[in-house]
Amino acid sequence: MEPDHGTRPRPPRRGALTRRLLLGGAAAGAGAATLVGADALLRSSRPDAPAPADDPGLNGERTVAFHGPRQAGIETPPQAHAKFLAVDLADDTGAEKVRRLLRLLTDDAAKLTQGQAALADSEPELAFVPARLTVTFGFGPGLVERVAPDAVPSWLRPLPEFATDRLREEWSGGDLLLQICSDDPLTVSHAARMLSKDVRAFGGLRWAQDGFRRAHGSEAPGTTMRNLMGQVDGTVNLEPGSADFEELVWGRRDNPAWLRDGTGMVVRRIAMDLDTWDRLDRPGREEAVGRRLADGAPLTGEHEHDEPDFEALTPLGFPRIAEYAHIRRARSDDPAERVFRRGYNYDVPVAGDAGQDAGLLFVSYQADVERQFVPIQRRLDELDLLNEWISPIGSAVFAVPPGCAEGGFVGETLFER
Amino acid sequence: MEPDHGTRPRPPRRGALTRRLLLGGAAAGAGAATLVGADALLRSSRPDAPAPADDPGLNGERTVAFHGPRQAGIETPPQAHAKFLAVDLADDTGAEKVRRLLRLLTDDAAKLTQGQAALADSEPELAFVPARLTVTFGFGPGLVERVAPDAVPSWLRPLPEFATDRLREEWSGGDLLLQICSDDPLTVSHAARMLSKDVRAFGGLRWAQDGFRRAHGSEAPGTTMRNLMGQVDGTVNLEPGSADFEELVWGRRDNPAWLRDGTGMVVRRIAMDLDTWDRLDRPGREEAVGRRLADGAPLTGEHEHDEPDFEALTPLGFPRIAEYAHIRRARSDDPAERVFRRGYNYDVPVAGDAGQDAGLLFVSYQADVERQFVPIQRRLDELDLLNEWISPIGSAVFAVPPGCAEGGFVGETLFER
Ligand code: HEM
Ligand code: HEM
Repeated sequence: MEPDHGTRPRPPRRGALTRRLLLGGAAAGAGAATLVGADALLRSSRPDAPAPADDPGLNGERTVAFHGPRQAGIETPPQAHAKFLAVDLADDTGAEKVRRLLRLLTDDAAKLTQGQAALADSEPELAFVPARLTVTFGFGPGLVERVAPDAVPSWLRPLPEFATDRLREEWSGGDLLLQICSDDPLTVSHAARMLSKDVRAFGGLRWAQDGFRRAHGSEAPGTTMRNLMGQVDGTVNLEPGSADFEELVWGRRDNPAWLRDGTGMVVRRIAMDLDTWDRLDRPGREEAVGRRLADGAPLTGEHEHDEPDFEALTPLGFPRIAEYAHIRRARSDDPAERVFRRGYNYDVPVAGDAGQDAGLLFVSYQADVERQFVPIQRRLDELDLLNEWISPIGSAVFAVPPGCAEGGFVGETLFER
Repeated sequence: MEPDHGTRPRPPRRGALTRRLLLGGAAAGAGAATLVGADALLRSSRPDAPAPADDPGLNGERTVAFHGPRQAGIETPPQAHAKFLAVDLADDTGAEKVRRLLRLLTDDAAKLTQGQAALADSEPELAFVPARLTVTFGFGPGLVERVAPDAVPSWLRPLPEFATDRLREEWSGGDLLLQICSDDPLTVSHAARMLSKDVRAFGGLRWAQDGFRRAHGSEAPGTTMRNLMGQVDGTVNLEPGSADFEELVWGRRDNPAWLRDGTGMVVRRIAMDLDTWDRLDRPGREEAVGRRLADGAPLTGEHEHDEPDFEALTPLGFPRIAEYAHIRRARSDDPAERVFRRGYNYDVPVAGDAGQDAGLLFVSYQADVERQFVPIQRRLDELDLLNEWISPIGSAVFAVPPGCAEGGFVGETLFER
């Protein structure tokens, strides 16, 4: 079992800081469940310069543990910035080469997340501000097949086609995914560059997608994010550390043994037509979701976290939360049909008079994509008023292998069977 | 004269904060010179909830004053994120329409920067986290000509051609520029959307460019930024509040009267060939600039802010700071030939095996672009080892009008002559 936290050796810098504030990688250690969210802040003072307990230190210094039974970047409270890189392996990249690639990437990710330069880091100074950097690996069917063709989980394949899909090849698929998250955009950029260079001898970049949430320090910790439609997005979600999360995200079910302490991942690029959305009035928008824009409360409640009452009727006898409301359609009667959502906004600059290329990088984690994600998506595809303004334009599914101990590499369980 | 700061009225929110931390818009008020940098933090406690003096509050709550004799976003300590929007005015957008557009944009910028919804804000909740949002207006020749053809400053035209230029239309020119900066990427995205909507009836978006620096809280305040080549970038620069800054940025020189308390702005998109750069060893890279990578100290000194000694020789009799070094070439014997640099990194995700679309959004402010920027750029164009790895691919020049008082609009001096 790896330690949850470690101090981070680093070269001296100008204005060197006397302390480090370390955020335990919630997903990465033993007592994980107790280490989630804002409570996960642990302080470690350097003996030479003890600091007042109320000085939170610099966010740039905070690290999330890389090593551990589970990969970081899933239970980790979402960082402000994310870059998703999907790699296509070259035809001649067989099992042995995949192993070498994964070792290379693991070594560099382990270093970078701890604020250290990558092995052949061309800009080492850019590595010294981890700002809670995490690198999370996902394996597409193409990678698993190369290493262990009989160990591909049944759900590791492209999602079934949905009527509302407008998928584009350029945002779909991929043999290997790297989810790179940090509160600092320069850190993300540098880590992505170093890891992309590792990949070059083994394949090419299939797609790259950038996402953002509110900056660290913009809002009180624990505030639910808003998406670009202005909605509070993420209220009802599996809670890291909970028994449900253990079962529905990390639970093995029928997954192959190499995926123990791993999970499944769905990445969908969902474009928003904000111009038509903006023409709808507020009551119309609130009905489309079933929640209020101001605070995210259900239309039948007062506070964001109030339980929606799907039976409640208006005086005229209509359901207060409409039949077509997103939250009604997204919720299943079967509690096993739930996923953990950890998405990001995207907004790509485009020239032209009206256009905007913006939307949601929908990212969900679930132990079994087929049993948990697909039924929800199917219901939404059939009926969801939000569909008027959103279209999935990219889609990919990955298996997220367990984490590894120091000296190991992410994906080793695939080779050890 | 406008007040430097104001409390920011805003709707109640969940977990409402009891205080606000206001950053004086350094450029926007009376005692501007004293309000620059980290020292500019002023706290204002709400009478109903006085706070302990050591609680810095949320960065998301901080505002920079919009109104004032000079526009904010220039002397303002650079925020983490920037979006530059260049607008082409429609052919039928004459002086009267320009006035209406500027009033519209001013009103919305004034509101948004103070954390309030824009006039016809379609996602008002996204406006409540200003995080030091500033909106800075720049006028291209096309705009000034429409309003006051005889008042175009002589330097307000495309830069002369340089041998190293690889300019592309899609990143060059523009009638109106909006520089939107905030420590929060969602705030930038929302403000850009609202302001772009204002523009629609008057023209189209010519280009949009996103830039970033280190996140707020990543490093100690005052740390000089690093660019994607890993260099400390911004060490020798005009200092907001200094007499030099007053003269060289805000000084009128021969500018037309409507530009009093305004300045000139150059925006250049400079691509970096990071792959070839990475093949150069560290001594080679340090020679190319004349400064050390580790700490930005000149090759003849020990600390970042040591004065470079351009006369110093190696034991073999070569200059310690090479003839082709960027800092030697960028420095003029004439102290009037200086600019204020306030650039951002850019890094656009691209698929493909090796490619990366990354570089520097070079942004400089100077009262006279012709006399201050052009001679520097000319020297760099003639000789600068950095040219091996960088190419300017976009270029635009704008006149930055003064700020305005409440009730006024940015650019009004152009109409009042
Ligand atoms: C751009 C696309 C989408 C937008 C804008 C969106 C927005 C929202 C919003 C505002 C909520 C209510 C607040 C909350 O509980 O988080 C919500 C809930 C939810 N969404 Fe979405 N969503 C999108 C796509 C999806 C997709 C693709 C799925 C899964 C297939 C999904 C699954 C859910 C679930 C499970 C809930 C919680 C429902 C419950 O109350 O039990 N959403 N979404
Ligand atoms: C991608 C392009 C560029 C890169 C990577 C770059 C990088 C640097 C670096 C590392 C320094 C030393 C640290 C400092 O004083 O800031 C510097 C200084 C400087 N650069 Fe650049 N630069 C670029 C383009 C330009 C351009 C286009 C100009 C103006 C035309 C310019 C003007 C200057 C000036 C005036 C200095 C200060 C020189 C002095 O010591 O007096 N740079 N630059």
